[in-house]
Amino acid sequence: MARFITIGERIHCISPSIRDAMENRKPEPILKRAKEQLDAGATYLDVNIGPAESSGEEIMKWAVTLIQGACDNAPLCFDTSNRKAIEAGISVYNRAKGKPVINSADAGDRISNIDLAAANDAIVLALCSKSGISADNDERMAHCQEMLERALSLGMEAEDVWFDPLFLVIKGMQDKQLEVLEFVRQCSEMGLKTTGGLSNVSNGMPKDIRPVIDSAMVAMAMMNGLSSAICNPCDLRLMQTIKSCDVIRNNYLYADSYLEF
Amino acid sequence: MARFITIGERIHCISPSIRDAMENRKPEPILKRAKEQLDAGATYLDVNIGPAESSGEEIMKWAVTLIQGACDNAPLCFDTSNRKAIEAGISVYNRAKGKPVINSADAGDRISNIDLAAANDAIVLALCSKSGISADNDERMAHCQEMLERALSLGMEAEDVWFDPLFLVIKGMQDKQLEVLEFVRQCSEMGLKTTGGLSNVSNGMPKDIRPVIDSAMVAMAMMNGLSSAICNPCDLRLMQTIKSCDVIRNNYLYADSYLEF
Repeated sequence: MARFITIGERIHCISPSIRDAMENRKPEPILKRAKEQLDAGATYLDVNIGPAESSGEEIMKWAVTLIQGACDNAPLCFDTSNRKAIEAGISVYNRAKGKPVINSADAGDRISNIDLAAANDAIVLALCSKSGISADNDERMAHCQEMLERALSLGMEAEDVWFDPLFLVIKGMQDKQLEVLEFVRQCSEMGLKTTGGLSNVSNGMPKDIRPVIDSAMVAMAMMNGLSSAICNPCDLRLMQTIKSCDVIRNNYLYADSYLEF
Repeated sequence: MARFITIGERIHCISPSIRDAMENRKPEPILKRAKEQLDAGATYLDVNIGPAESSGEEIMKWAVTLIQGACDNAPLCFDTSNRKAIEAGISVYNRAKGKPVINSADAGDRISNIDLAAANDAIVLALCSKSGISADNDERMAHCQEMLERALSLGMEAEDVWFDPLFLVIKGMQDKQLEVLEFVRQCSEMGLKTTGGLSNVSNGMPKDIRPVIDSAMVAMAMMNGLSSAICNPCDLRLMQTIKSCDVIRNNYLYADSYLEF
């Protein structure tokens, strides 16, 4: 099995300092979070510029050039509903460390992001929902199949579509957690790659509890074959857990120093 | 699903202070560890007196009376190869908080501990091995079936036999970890209860790494249905993980204060 892929979520315009940095093209706040996340073990960095309807193309090009230039061409994940901004980002993206990732397609309005990934030899995150949360795993699987077929028909490899069950908040949807985990297992058994916004799970919980729950969840999901997650790599407990589960899955050889890498 | 059952492992004659306390009938070291473990969330307490060939019966009776008297009849697990010591312990055991547990039977020389459990309305931990470590899950399952049939033929309920896959040390048997976890899943899917000596997994690792690996392992095993473990309840990270996985498994309702109970 390949090692787990961590997609760092912290370059996100929901943060006031990042929003300001994007709007006013200030490199420091963005580079600080980029380096922190890479140092903490992130493989990919998500770049969320929001809808960015007016200046999305310029912002994305600027951010991609900035981050890849300062961080040895770290691979990136383009996170926006602005399709032209994704295309602009890809146009200046350096693939030396990995294909670009489009975040995200779904089986509804955003299914065209699969076409976009196919046209650009990109990876696409594929949310297994259409309008709102899927009612059950039959529905998730129907969406998964639809998106997989579309990707394959456009010449993509299945391994470039990472299926996202949509992790759900425990406070309010506690009884859905095993269902989501079971869906991860179904995808894994089909040989499909999986991902998801892990921190949804602990949304609304006290700050000190979130790393505890997120870590438990990622370990359970990794048992079921989860191959990546969009999460906070600066959460030490979470990263220790991911590395430990990778050792247990025999993805790389144990050494007493394994937590340091 | 029932809540996960933690069997505290720290009353063990391998500890010099506990050995001395058992030999010389000193209550304090034993009661200290009993209370610490119960306070930390242990359900059962394992009482390991070693082979105790000469005075095992006296030691076990003394320890059971001592611990149950001071700890509100906490349920206990009798851990010794001395059959008469187990019988002696059961003879003074108070069942108010749960049946006694016999640790352990296997499919080899110790299979008669199943008979002992049947004769005493006890729970038995059933190690799925015969002579040495089972080669694969087919062998584990053959041993499991043999012990299950024996228990059922003697009138036991299946839920009173807790099957132990034998957790293996990562340093040396890293490539066996997923096999052991898969066996837990096979047992769970058959509706069987499972347990095991969790800390085997991190044996020989640096002290600060053990809670990290043990926690990752217990979460992965709980994903596969593990229903109990013999472990160190004073490992805070481990207990936080167990409680979190129980929340994710929907075994009890989430509250912001769930880690405190």
